[in-house]
Amino acid sequence: MIVVLKPNISKKDEAIVLKEIKKLGYQPHIMRGVQRTVIGAIGDERTHSSLEALTAFAGVESVMPVQKRYKLVSREAHQGNSTIKVGAEKTLIGGKKFQVMAGPCSVESESQLITTAKAVKAAGATILRGGAFKPRTSPYEFQGLGEKGLKMLAKARRETGLAIITELLSEEHAEMVAEYADILQIGARNAQNFQLLIAAAKTGKPVLLKRGLSMKVEEWLLAGEYVLANENPNLMFCERGIRTFETYTRNTLDLSTIPIIKKESHCPIVIDPSQGAGRADLVMAMCKGAVAMGADALLIEVHPNPSQALSDAAQQVTLEGFATLMEELKPFIAAAGRE
Amino acid sequence: MIVVLKPNISKKDEAIVLKEIKKLGYQPHIMRGVQRTVIGAIGDERTHSSLEALTAFAGVESVMPVQKRYKLVSREAHQGNSTIKVGAEKTLIGGKKFQVMAGPCSVESESQLITTAKAVKAAGATILRGGAFKPRTSPYEFQGLGEKGLKMLAKARRETGLAIITELLSEEHAEMVAEYADILQIGARNAQNFQLLIAAAKTGKPVLLKRGLSMKVEEWLLAGEYVLANENPNLMFCERGIRTFETYTRNTLDLSTIPIIKKESHCPIVIDPSQGAGRADLVMAMCKGAVAMGADALLIEVHPNPSQALSDAAQQVTLEGFATLMEELKPFIAAAGRE
Amino acid sequence: MIVVLKPNISKKDEAIVLKEIKKLGYQPHIMRGVQRTVIGAIGDERTHSSLEALTAFAGVESVMPVQKRYKLVSREAHQGNSTIKVGAEKTLIGGKKFQVMAGPCSVESESQLITTAKAVKAAGATILRGGAFKPRTSPYEFQGLGEKGLKMLAKARRETGLAIITELLSEEHAEMVAEYADILQIGARNAQNFQLLIAAAKTGKPVLLKRGLSMKVEEWLLAGEYVLANENPNLMFCERGIRTFETYTRNTLDLSTIPIIKKESHCPIVIDPSQGAGRADLVMAMCKGAVAMGADALLIEVHPNPSQALSDAAQQVTLEGFATLMEELKPFIAAAGRE
Amino acid sequence: MIVVLKPNISKKDEAIVLKEIKKLGYQPHIMRGVQRTVIGAIGDERTHSSLEALTAFAGVESVMPVQKRYKLVSREAHQGNSTIKVGAEKTLIGGKKFQVMAGPCSVESESQLITTAKAVKAAGATILRGGAFKPRTSPYEFQGLGEKGLKMLAKARRETGLAIITELLSEEHAEMVAEYADILQIGARNAQNFQLLIAAAKTGKPVLLKRGLSMKVEEWLLAGEYVLANENPNLMFCERGIRTFETYTRNTLDLSTIPIIKKESHCPIVIDPSQGAGRADLVMAMCKGAVAMGADALLIEVHPNPSQALSDAAQQVTLEGFATLMEELKPFIAAAGRE
Repeated sequence: MIVVLKPNISKKDEAIVLKEIKKLGYQPHIMRGVQRTVIGAIGDERTHSSLEALTAFAGVESVMPVQKRYKLVSREAHQGNSTIKVGAEKTLIGGKKFQVMAGPCSVESESQLITTAKAVKAAGATILRGGAFKPRTSPYEFQGLGEKGLKMLAKARRETGLAIITELLSEEHAEMVAEYADILQIGARNAQNFQLLIAAAKTGKPVLLKRGLSMKVEEWLLAGEYVLANENPNLMFCERGIRTFETYTRNTLDLSTIPIIKKESHCPIVIDPSQGAGRADLVMAMCKGAVAMGADALLIEVHPNPSQALSDAAQQVTLEGFATLMEELKPFIAAAGRE
Repeated sequence: MIVVLKPNISKKDEAIVLKEIKKLGYQPHIMRGVQRTVIGAIGDERTHSSLEALTAFAGVESVMPVQKRYKLVSREAHQGNSTIKVGAEKTLIGGKKFQVMAGPCSVESESQLITTAKAVKAAGATILRGGAFKPRTSPYEFQGLGEKGLKMLAKARRETGLAIITELLSEEHAEMVAEYADILQIGARNAQNFQLLIAAAKTGKPVLLKRGLSMKVEEWLLAGEYVLANENPNLMFCERGIRTFETYTRNTLDLSTIPIIKKESHCPIVIDPSQGAGRADLVMAMCKGAVAMGADALLIEVHPNPSQALSDAAQQVTLEGFATLMEELKPFIAAAGRE
Repeated sequence: MIVVLKPNISKKDEAIVLKEIKKLGYQPHIMRGVQRTVIGAIGDERTHSSLEALTAFAGVESVMPVQKRYKLVSREAHQGNSTIKVGAEKTLIGGKKFQVMAGPCSVESESQLITTAKAVKAAGATILRGGAFKPRTSPYEFQGLGEKGLKMLAKARRETGLAIITELLSEEHAEMVAEYADILQIGARNAQNFQLLIAAAKTGKPVLLKRGLSMKVEEWLLAGEYVLANENPNLMFCERGIRTFETYTRNTLDLSTIPIIKKESHCPIVIDPSQGAGRADLVMAMCKGAVAMGADALLIEVHPNPSQALSDAAQQVTLEGFATLMEELKPFIAAAGRE
Repeated sequence: MIVVLKPNISKKDEAIVLKEIKKLGYQPHIMRGVQRTVIGAIGDERTHSSLEALTAFAGVESVMPVQKRYKLVSREAHQGNSTIKVGAEKTLIGGKKFQVMAGPCSVESESQLITTAKAVKAAGATILRGGAFKPRTSPYEFQGLGEKGLKMLAKARRETGLAIITELLSEEHAEMVAEYADILQIGARNAQNFQLLIAAAKTGKPVLLKRGLSMKVEEWLLAGEYVLANENPNLMFCERGIRTFETYTRNTLDLSTIPIIKKESHCPIVIDPSQGAGRADLVMAMCKGAVAMGADALLIEVHPNPSQALSDAAQQVTLEGFATLMEELKPFIAAAGRE
C-alpha cells in the first residue's frame, strides 16, 4: 500500500500513522517528496488487514493499493489458458475450437425448445441455452417455467446431444438446477450475490459469470474469485453489456473485456451480444467483433418466432437469422485462428 | 403502448402489425403523421402481454410504453404518505418526526457495539444499525460475525431500547435475521435479487431497500413492488449513491431521489450518506442536504474508532463527530418542518 | 509519482526504468515489497515531465500520481474563501450573503425579459440570467437573439439595477459579450473548450464555469485553473448535473460537489437546479438542499410563461413559483448561517 | 409527438392542452386508454415548434417525440454509403478499400514526424495523423507546436505523399489549419462546440467528428448535422471511447457504434482504438474488432519512442508494433470483404 500524507501533517500525527502501519503488520518506508511525504507500507495486501482505514487518520490524504486483490483467477496464478469440459460430449470451452451457445431467452414450451435446439445444432451450435427461472424487473412479468422448464431442457439434450446452460437464480435451487444443467449461469443482477456464487461453486458444475451492469473489471474478477476460492476451477466470464448513459442500445457491450480478461485471467471469456445490444439487428456485427477480438464462445438468444417470445422479444434472432450468422462468422473464426 | 412504424412500411406489413396488436389484447388506433404512422394500442399494459415484441416485426421502428409499470408502490395507489412502525417502541418512519439510524458498518464486538449504541442514542438516534452478514467485494475480506453479531445487536437493543436494522444477505437466513431485526436491510448489490426481496417480504418485518449501484428510479420502484406484491406494506426506499464516472467520491449520492420518490411513491425515503460519499468528511453536508430536501430518515455509519474498523473505515464518523452532526442538523430539521 | 513494477521484471528492465526516472528529473526511491517492487519518484509533478510515459516500458505495471495537478484554484494556494464582486452594485458572491441569479433560459423579447427581471428582483434575486447565444443540440432549434439579446439584457440592468450573467459561446464574441455582461458563463458543453476559457479569462470579467456533462472534479478544477492561470482571479464553479444512466431526470445533480469544491478550492460554488433536474417540479427541493449544503449562490431558470418558452420549457419555473421558492428558502438560508 | 395526459386531468385542462397543440401548428388526435388519455400531435417535428413545452402544463405527464431529429446525415436522406475523397491522391474513405490513419499523438519534431510518417506508410497507412494544437486537461501540459507543427505535417506530406489529418481547436485557426490539413479533426471535448463545427464546415475540408465523452448517438448525429447543414457533405464520424464507471481503461470503446452509424447514417465511421483503450497493449484487439464489425477506417497513435512522447505516452504503439498490427489485420480485412 502507498499512504500519501497531507502537506501540513504534524510530526506527532505522522508518528501515529507509522505506528498504526506497523501494528497492522506492514513495514513502513518513508519517502519525503517536494510537497508531500509518502509512505510505502510493505506487506501482503491480500492477507493483512487493509490499510484503507488509515484515511480516517488526521494527516492522511489517501491510501492507494499496489497489489492486485485477486489471486486464483489471475493470469499470474496460472500462466496458460484454462479450458472447461462441458457435458457428456466434453465440449471444450477455451480451447482451439470456438464454441457457440444458442437458444431462447426463456424456455416457453417443449415444441419451442426442441425446434430451436435442432435448428441451432444444425447451424453449428454445441450448447443450448434457455432460461427456466427468469429474473424480471417487474413482478408482473413472466417468471419462467421453473423445474418444468428444466425438464424440457433435459429432454432437448437427450434429443440433440447439446449440452445445457441455464440460469441459477436462488441458492435454494442450486442442487436442483445443477441436476439438469451442464453449465450454471449467474446473471448480471446477481453478479455480486456472493451467497449465490458460493452455492453455484459448490455444486461442482461449470459456472458462467455474467458481468454486473455496473461492475468494474476488478470487481468481476473478484466475484469470480468467490467461485475458485470455493474449489470450483471451472469458471468462465461472460460480458453482456454495461449500463451507460447511451439509450440507443439497451446496454453498451464492452468488447474490450476480451483482451482484458485474457490479460488478467486464465479463465475463458464468452460474449453475449443479445443482452449487450438488446436489438437483434446489431447481433451479427457484435458477433463478428467478438470472434475477431479473441472471445472463446458466444451466447446468443435464438427464437423460432421472436415476436411471440414471452421475454426479450426485441433481441432474439430467428432460426434463419442464426443460420446466416453462423455462416457469416466462418471467415472471421478462421482469421482468428480458431476452428 | 405507442407503436411507431417505419416511414416506408408496406400495407401488408402494417396489416400484420395491426393483427398482432389485436391478438395480444389491445385495441389499435391509427394516426397517420407527416413522416410516420403511429399506432396507439389501447389496453392495460400491466396485465396484457407486452407489445415490445412488436419491435421484432418488419416495419416497426419503436414501441413506447405509456403507463407506469408499478402499481402498489405508486402515489396513485395511495395518496397519503405511508408510515412504518418499527420495534417495540413503535418508532414511526415517514411521520412528522425525523428519524436517525446510526451505528457501525459491521458488528465487530460486544463492546464496540454497546459503546456505539449508547453514544448514538444519547445523541438522538432512535434506531441502531450494524451489519452481521457483510457482502464483500473480495472473498478474502471480513464477512461479518453472522448469528453471533445478531445476538450482540439484540443485546444492544435490550440495553438501550433502540430498534435494530441489519442486512439480509441470503434467502436461507431470512427467518433467522427476522427473529433478531426490527428492519431488514436489502443491500445495493442485492437490490434486484428478487428471490431475496420475496423472502424478506414474507417475514413480515419492515424492509429497507437500498438502490442498486446502477438502478434507474423505475427499476427501484419495481423492485419495491416485489415487496408490496408479497403482502408486506412496510417498505422504505434508501438512496445510497449510484455509480458514475466520478472517482473523487466512492459513489454519487443522488439526493434528487428524495423529491422523486415523494412524487412517485407513498413509501418513506431514507438517505445513507456514508455509502453515498464513502468519506466521513462529506457526511455532514450530505445529511444537511437530505434533511432540507425532505428525507424521512438518515442511515449513518458511526464507529468508536474508525481507523480500527474491519470494513469501510474511511466513511465511518466518530462518536463525537456524530454528536456534533446531530446538533448541527437541528436547525435544518426545524426549517424542514420536522421534529 | 509512484511507479509500480511488474512482479517478474528483470534486473535490466528495472535499471532502464530507474535511469529514465532520473532523466526526467525525479529522484527514484526503491521499495521492495512482498510481490512487487515500487519506486517512489520524488520531484514536483506539476513542473516536471509526467512519468506516465513509463507505462510504455516493459516491466512497468502502473504509474500513480501523488500530487494534485491544480495549484491556483486549490485551497492550499489560498486558505480563505475567495469572494467576487459583481456589477456596479458590487454584489458579493462567496460572502455571507446568499445570492440568487434568476431569469429566462433564453432572452426572447424585451417584454419577456423586463417582466421577468422585475419579478425576480422583487422576489429577492440580485443577478439576472438570460441566454443571448444558445448552444443547441440540433441546428434546427432556436439559437438565441445574439447581440440584440445582449442589448435587452443591458436595458433590463438599467431598469432594475440587477447585474447580468449570460453565456459566452464563441471566442470571437468574447469582447462583445464582455461589454454587456457582468459575469460570463461558460456552458457545460464548452467546459473543456480551453480556447474559450482563455478568451473569457482575458476579458477580465468574472467567469462562471459550469461542470461538463461527464467531467470529473479534478478535470473541472483544472479547467478552472486555465482561468486563474490567465490572470483572472474571479472564477466561480457551477454544478448543473452530470450525465448518468438515470433517465427520470435530464441530468443527475451532484450536490456533493458543494462540500468537495469547498474542501479543494477557495472559489465560490453555485448550483443550477434547473439544468440539473430538467423539471420545474424538482427545482424547489434541489434549491433547499443546495442552500443547506453550503452553496454560495443559485442559478435558476424563471419564465413568465414556461409553456411558451423557446428553449427548455420543461425546466423553467413561473414568476409566482419563483416568489414562493424564495420565500420557502428563507429558513434554510438562516439555518445555514447565511443572509 | 405523443402527449401523455395524467390520469386525473380535468376536462378544462385537457381543452387547454388541445388548444395549445393546435396553436403550435400540430393536429391533435385523441386516444382514450384504460388509465390515461394520449394525444397524437401530427405535424413535422423538425420544423414546427417543439411540443416539449407542454410538460409545463398542468395535466400533462410526458411528451415523447416520434420523428428523428436529424435529416441530412440520416440514412433516409441518402440510401447509399457516402464516400470522401481525401488529399491529392484522392484517397477514398468509405469505399471498398479499408483505410488506416496513423501517426503520433503530438507533432514533436521534424525527425519524430518524418520517421513515423515513413514507417506508417511502409506498413500500409495512407493518411498521417499528428496534433499541432493539443487540448490538454491541465494548462501546465504541453499544448502542441502550433503552426510550426502544421508546417512539419506539410513537409511530411511532401516527402511521403500521405494525406494529413490534424485537430482544429479554435474557430480562429480554422483557415490556417485548413490550409495545411487534408482532414480537420474535431476532438471529443469540442464535439458540441457548435461554433467550431460551423467554422470547420465552412472551410470546405473533410471533417472527422469524434464522439464526445458522454454523447448519445443521437446527439452525435445532430452535431454532424451542423456540418452538413453548413454545406459541407464530407463528414465522417469517429468513435474514440465514451466515459463510463470503468477505470481499467481510460475510456470504454463503444464498437457497437459501427453497425449503429451504418444503420442510421450514410457517413463513414472511423475507429480510434488508441484513445478508446488508453493502453497500447489493447490496441491490436480493438483494431481487429473494428475491422470485423465494418468500420471504414482506423485512426491509430504511433510513436517511434512512446516513452519519450510529450503526450499520451501510454497509448501510442511503436513503429514495429504498428507494422505487426497491419500484418495481423490483413485476414480480418479480407474476411470483412474489404481491401
